[in-house]
Amino acid sequence: MPAVPAPSPLTAFTLDDLRTRHSVKWREFPEDVLPMHIAEMDTPLAPPIADALTRAIAQGDTGYATTGRLPEAFAAFAARRFGWRPDPAAMRLVPDVMAGILEVLGVVTEPGDRVLFNTPGYPPYFSCLPGMGREIVTNPLVRDDTGYRLDLDRLERDLASGVRAYLLCNPHNPTGAVFPEEDLKAVADLAARYGVQVLSDEIHAPLVHPGSVHVPFPSLDAPAAASSVAFHSASKAWNLAGLKASLVVPGPDARAVGAAIREEIEESAGLLGVLAAEAAFAHGEPWLDELVTALAGNHRHLAALLDEHLPAVRHHRPQAGYLAWLDLRALDLGTDPARHFLDHARIGLSSGPRFAPEGDPDQVGRGFARLNFATRPDLLTGAVQRMSATL
Amino acid sequence: MPAVPAPSPLTAFTLDDLRTRHSVKWREFPEDVLPMHIAEMDTPLAPPIADALTRAIAQGDTGYATTGRLPEAFAAFAARRFGWRPDPAAMRLVPDVMAGILEVLGVVTEPGDRVLFNTPGYPPYFSCLPGMGREIVTNPLVRDDTGYRLDLDRLERDLASGVRAYLLCNPHNPTGAVFPEEDLKAVADLAARYGVQVLSDEIHAPLVHPGSVHVPFPSLDAPAAASSVAFHSASKAWNLAGLKASLVVPGPDARAVGAAIREEIEESAGLLGVLAAEAAFAHGEPWLDELVTALAGNHRHLAALLDEHLPAVRHHRPQAGYLAWLDLRALDLGTDPARHFLDHARIGLSSGPRFAPEGDPDQVGRGFARLNFATRPDLLTGAVQRMSATL
Repeated sequence: MPAVPAPSPLTAFTLDDLRTRHSVKWREFPEDVLPMHIAEMDTPLAPPIADALTRAIAQGDTGYATTGRLPEAFAAFAARRFGWRPDPAAMRLVPDVMAGILEVLGVVTEPGDRVLFNTPGYPPYFSCLPGMGREIVTNPLVRDDTGYRLDLDRLERDLASGVRAYLLCNPHNPTGAVFPEEDLKAVADLAARYGVQVLSDEIHAPLVHPGSVHVPFPSLDAPAAASSVAFHSASKAWNLAGLKASLVVPGPDARAVGAAIREEIEESAGLLGVLAAEAAFAHGEPWLDELVTALAGNHRHLAALLDEHLPAVRHHRPQAGYLAWLDLRALDLGTDPARHFLDHARIGLSSGPRFAPEGDPDQVGRGFARLNFATRPDLLTGAVQRMSATL
Repeated sequence: MPAVPAPSPLTAFTLDDLRTRHSVKWREFPEDVLPMHIAEMDTPLAPPIADALTRAIAQGDTGYATTGRLPEAFAAFAARRFGWRPDPAAMRLVPDVMAGILEVLGVVTEPGDRVLFNTPGYPPYFSCLPGMGREIVTNPLVRDDTGYRLDLDRLERDLASGVRAYLLCNPHNPTGAVFPEEDLKAVADLAARYGVQVLSDEIHAPLVHPGSVHVPFPSLDAPAAASSVAFHSASKAWNLAGLKASLVVPGPDARAVGAAIREEIEESAGLLGVLAAEAAFAHGEPWLDELVTALAGNHRHLAALLDEHLPAVRHHRPQAGYLAWLDLRALDLGTDPARHFLDHARIGLSSGPRFAPEGDPDQVGRGFARLNFATRPDLLTGAVQRMSATL
């Protein structure tokens, strides 16, 4: 375990600094809880983003949002980072990825249609999809010694059962899995065979760790990829969730889907979010590289802490992002170990069962919790020690 | 006409400064057009708002929005400004007034229900309400020598025809009318008699000019007022439309309506919008008072310019806000005079016909245009002169 962590975006703020914030991470729990739940980072803003926002404040540039140069900035970033150059003219501005997904599902599916996603899955899927009259079909990822992957055999059976759309999350939340190109190609083949529209939530793509490669789904050479729609944002990698700007990125054969997005959705995006995202994609890569190095280091630190203090916890290295999906079943803390650690350690984790449907036959969330490690290494140390002391 | 306008929030920026902005007002038209259309102001941010945003940038406070102290700040502002103290605990955060209206309409009406609003009316109403399967019923305001008012006789006939909800806009956009208390009481009586739910869009309320008084609809002593829902925001009065934070403010008997707003709508608000709005309501009144004085002065300037250079234009003094609803029919420029002035004077106005439905039998928008006078007085002078020169 490193004695003193190297300075990085993760060590710039003290706990006292962070407690002055107004965001959900720092306000949802009482003050004596150390929050490690919602996907916000304890970092300062990247300097180019702070500069863009400071300029907007000085100019009083706070009126209605325009898309501006954000699509071009993202296309150039995607070309440098993923070797993929989507057409800026086809992109649409939306306030956040979830709003974009719901809007596109409204275009490509009808009420009563079945929509598949993998579990564990992003909690809002479980309420928003039924809320718009779509039936959800859950397909569990499978785990091996190194992490999670798609179960292509079961996926074929599930898609063949009559599914209209597949809401893929890649890199995957909460497991941090980055799906390999051959698995994504297999998904594209299955989608073509069974007439399934693919929506690819790629919000974690800029946060791929060294050694993994993000393959944008629409970049694959396959008909179901060309007609897929991806969702991108600077909000996760540069911590801008509260600024409300994301992009819907249609594949070359899905331009009509992008064009069908209602204007009022585009108009509900935030101007400061657009300016921040443009600065992030255009000038934020040096900061991003430093962040990703620090996140990978933080995960090594977390893994060492777990092995030392909570050796019964089963965990794996995420290939992207800053979320650790922890299998706590061996600790015998019941369905929702996050509840135990909130009550007894005053540590706020995300409850595992929220990442699965009610009464999930696959039981993918029961006994699990998600821990956000985009924080100071010393806070990680204290958190794991406090968790361990309750057992 | 004043030779040199007094310094005010409306004179802080030059035209060159304003053209660096990224908002819709400054990016929708080509560079040779002087935009006077969408409701943004050419002002700097009020100092308490700039301070709050600068602090958030320094803290990296850009994660998911919480409602924080915004409801309390608005309640105290409403008590000081309107003599009305709504219950902060009943308020709900939404990204903007339109999103709040659509959400509340989803709670209090069913597909196929009829929703009434006054014309001329806010253009998005004409697409968003049919977009959610509600039928629109338009009820024209009437004009006398001083401005626009409700036609209570026709309103009774229209409400009696089977209307489920009345979407009142007070102060009214685009006419700037502030409806007097006795008319609002008559509306409440009619709403009770015909079982109509009132939604009151009060986004322009902080911008009431000297001599007029804003009466919040839920503050009236009447059952239909107690069960009404108001919509408030700092976005219009402090120019924060791009920051995405508004409040749904249920009357004392409408708490269940507020409680029925989906969590995901609340979560789609912007954190910087919340912080800016809280600063505006808590500490932004000195700036607001200075602004309203300058706006009233600007309208006197505009009226003098119109009388001198475009004497055939019929206009009136708005009682709130910074929008002038101009009757240009005597100029014989056809249905949409804004088109003429865009093409021939390179002045961007809002087209009158957009404030009425397609094929409007009442013809309230034909031959009209809306002019935004929240700008430098010298730009108003130049605009009216350029418009006049095309005739």
